[in-house]
Amino acid sequence: MKEKKIKKNDERCALQEILGVIGGKWSMSIIYALFPGTKRFSELERLIPGINTRMLVKELKNMEANGIVVRNVYATVPPTVEYTLTAKGAQLEPIINDLYKWGLEYIS
Amino acid sequence: MKEKKIKKNDERCALQEILGVIGGKWSMSIIYALFPGTKRFSELERLIPGINTRMLVKELKNMEANGIVVRNVYATVPPTVEYTLTAKGAQLEPIINDLYKWGLEYIS
Repeated sequence: MKEKKIKKNDERCALQEILGVIGGKWSMSIIYALFPGTKRFSELERLIPGINTRMLVKELKNMEANGIVVRNVYATVPPTVEYTLTAKGAQLEPIINDLYKWGLEYIS
Repeated sequence: MKEKKIKKNDERCALQEILGVIGGKWSMSIIYALFPGTKRFSELERLIPGINTRMLVKELKNMEANGIVVRNVYATVPPTVEYTLTAKGAQLEPIINDLYKWGLEYIS
């Protein structure tokens, strides 16, 4: 009995941790915008309505630290900065699509 | 070309709206705690580590307004307040479970 309770608490803590990584206001929208492929910073900014530059920088740094996106900088003038989903990030595609389908049925 | 762009923007706005409903810091944890069945307010408080009473009240009100949970009050002394997932809320179970499985593979 005791052991089961501990296990259940661990599960919920893990869920909290997962949501800390991808449950933010913007992270799923950024991941969604990257599904079709690599995007420049400026493209992401344009693709996500309502996000500001500071928030986008912050979210992308967090997602890079968590291994969801990779950042590539090219020595052009001005420098080109591109973001691509990692394999780990790309695995979220069916889940976010399911969430989207769920929402469309209910939100007008 | 123009039409496609408008459609894409609509999709992203819908995703933002969906995340406004279930993408909060606590809402998925509350939904997760309700998957096995109806819970009293005090049980939810105990089941979700780190949440405080004020936040739990706020999130449950928001989820009730969005048709994800139903609230039942029984005229006991003191009154019993119970929360149950609606059909709409229960449909999130496979999606949240998939998200959980995704996270477990990567988060230690």
